[in-house]
Amino acid sequence: MNLRDYLTPAEWTRFREFSADKETPFLMIDLKKIKKNYIDFKRNFEQADMYYAVKASPSVEVLSVLDEQGSCFDIASIYELDRLLGLGVSPDRISYGNTIKKTKEITYAYDKGVRLFASDSEADLQNLIKYAPGSKIYIRLLVEGAMSADWPLARKFGCSMEEVKRLIALAKSQGVDIYGVSFHVGSQQRNILVWQYALMKVWDIFEWALDNEGVQLEMINMGGGFPSDYYYLTEDMDVYAEHINRFLEEYFGDRMPRIIIEPGRSLAGNTGVLVSEIVLISQKNQFEPYQWIYQDTGMFNGLIETMGEAIKYPIYTEKKGEKGEYILAGPTCDSMDILYQDFKYEFPLSLEIGDRLYWLSTGAYTSSYCSVEFNGFPPMKTYFID
Amino acid sequence: MNLRDYLTPAEWTRFREFSADKETPFLMIDLKKIKKNYIDFKRNFEQADMYYAVKASPSVEVLSVLDEQGSCFDIASIYELDRLLGLGVSPDRISYGNTIKKTKEITYAYDKGVRLFASDSEADLQNLIKYAPGSKIYIRLLVEGAMSADWPLARKFGCSMEEVKRLIALAKSQGVDIYGVSFHVGSQQRNILVWQYALMKVWDIFEWALDNEGVQLEMINMGGGFPSDYYYLTEDMDVYAEHINRFLEEYFGDRMPRIIIEPGRSLAGNTGVLVSEIVLISQKNQFEPYQWIYQDTGMFNGLIETMGEAIKYPIYTEKKGEKGEYILAGPTCDSMDILYQDFKYEFPLSLEIGDRLYWLSTGAYTSSYCSVEFNGFPPMKTYFID
Repeated sequence: MNLRDYLTPAEWTRFREFSADKETPFLMIDLKKIKKNYIDFKRNFEQADMYYAVKASPSVEVLSVLDEQGSCFDIASIYELDRLLGLGVSPDRISYGNTIKKTKEITYAYDKGVRLFASDSEADLQNLIKYAPGSKIYIRLLVEGAMSADWPLARKFGCSMEEVKRLIALAKSQGVDIYGVSFHVGSQQRNILVWQYALMKVWDIFEWALDNEGVQLEMINMGGGFPSDYYYLTEDMDVYAEHINRFLEEYFGDRMPRIIIEPGRSLAGNTGVLVSEIVLISQKNQFEPYQWIYQDTGMFNGLIETMGEAIKYPIYTEKKGEKGEYILAGPTCDSMDILYQDFKYEFPLSLEIGDRLYWLSTGAYTSSYCSVEFNGFPPMKTYFID
Repeated sequence: MNLRDYLTPAEWTRFREFSADKETPFLMIDLKKIKKNYIDFKRNFEQADMYYAVKASPSVEVLSVLDEQGSCFDIASIYELDRLLGLGVSPDRISYGNTIKKTKEITYAYDKGVRLFASDSEADLQNLIKYAPGSKIYIRLLVEGAMSADWPLARKFGCSMEEVKRLIALAKSQGVDIYGVSFHVGSQQRNILVWQYALMKVWDIFEWALDNEGVQLEMINMGGGFPSDYYYLTEDMDVYAEHINRFLEEYFGDRMPRIIIEPGRSLAGNTGVLVSEIVLISQKNQFEPYQWIYQDTGMFNGLIETMGEAIKYPIYTEKKGEKGEYILAGPTCDSMDILYQDFKYEFPLSLEIGDRLYWLSTGAYTSSYCSVEFNGFPPMKTYFID
């Protein structure tokens, strides 16, 4: 990997200097870069409202920067709601995107002023109609292509086109016009055409709703899924934006509804560098072709997205020279805490115990995933660089 | 599943009554049962010293019960060490079983008085010889059969017989006699014969060490791996003990070394009941044969051992009647937070939103695995029943 593909020399110097005297493991978040990413996103998706997916990097520091920029927010729970309200974010800038909600969670959010809710099942929809009257409800559509994402969305969320239509009709029969449709192409989606397939389905639903139920859907929530640069680089965001905006234009043209996007990983991913230290390097036996690197952070201390080796982070070391292939593992007594075993990272053979590894693009889905105390290890520290 | 296979009617009544007014999700731990399990274990392995694997259930409450019983403790980190010392456990009852240790962690434990350490690599062994002089060091042997465990140990820990011998010779060349050999058959190991294979290898190492290096190894640490009753019941612990004791007798007979065992899961597993609530039940579409149950706890709130559907917990509901097959998922916006999808649990079709699910045998490896705040959800509450 080439460091320059991820950080400018100035950014790297800043991370490097800031980190020098800190005890590992820890995460550094560059708040300037959060702001820059937000502005870039706004430029790329001019007509869209930005609802930052809080779960990606939920610290008060990150949320405050985005709040100042005027971002809206997508929440997964009432706890995220409370954090935002605590920062002074008004409830009309918040969307409750989790389709799995208890009645009392709906009531709680509604009482706090939230009026924008996702749904994908009859039971939840009935709850919203009953306990969140007058709210704008959008139905989440299942997008098959989501299986091609690095961190795929399986079938946990969303429902089929048929089911979306049934829910629109069901709401209509109770006097409620559904507000719009959402989809999520899968986290870290690389195939731009998945957005096209999704928008084609949404268009079909828009047409159907108007023709059959007299419901004019007003909003498309395109969710997140925009990729971040990990071990394998992605296209620039401009390329994604160019094509996605073209698809929108092709399907909706002069009848363009309100567009919402919910970037999380793509806004926060490249703002973080996680620093670990090599605790041990060992060769299991003389016939084993690979050496093992055990380092002081692992799957249960922030790197859980290495599960199934799904997310392959770019890992930088300052050591140089001839390279060998290594297996990477964490510090706990849990054997599941092996980060990369099938995919072999190459590092200089000059690596030694005590050396640091810099895990780039670790700004999203790291610190909040940490276990409270698995094997006694405390959650990872996070520092913010301004 | 049959509730009586897991809890006596009296135990169930106690759990049920205690839980009635508590808000889900939460975990209940029966401290009386911790004590009972400890006594049963002592009876089954009369000649062994018990080193409870703290990581399995690391609460002060559980540790205190075991401390009162005179248990020793196996630790995975200096944080677990501090907790034990804080309870007044003397360091000569503590074994530092994690083979992945920083120099400063070795120094820290040594300064606190710990003198029993595991190792499985040259670098760690050299560190122990240098920074923990006079300590009793045991080398961890890799046991192939460990791959047949429900939660297998892969190859992260332990080294080959050849490597164990090399390390014994290496220590000897520096004037240090290695104290013993440890192995771990894999967590939730059902195949009793794996202990036999392991002990055969240990016996070979004992013979070799005496014959070739003049080192009389004095201890066998058989680790943990004794299974707990999950969805699939295991043999009674008596059966495991009977055969394992027989293997020990067959190989070591009148030259029996000190025996250590490190039960964790088998001591704590059946002491816990996790209570969740059904948030949603949904059928994705009319052609989908299974319904989905979304409940208020999931992979990132204590049930991470459902990863890969490795640990299948017995799940009890009070509803009765005709059954159907369900897919079980957690409450977060993460699609990896699906607990069981390939393996289909059967529940009564009368199940409704708001019903409680009782996850039996959840005393080990649940609460400490919880994420700090993924999706904003707080770590699971734990209650202790005395």
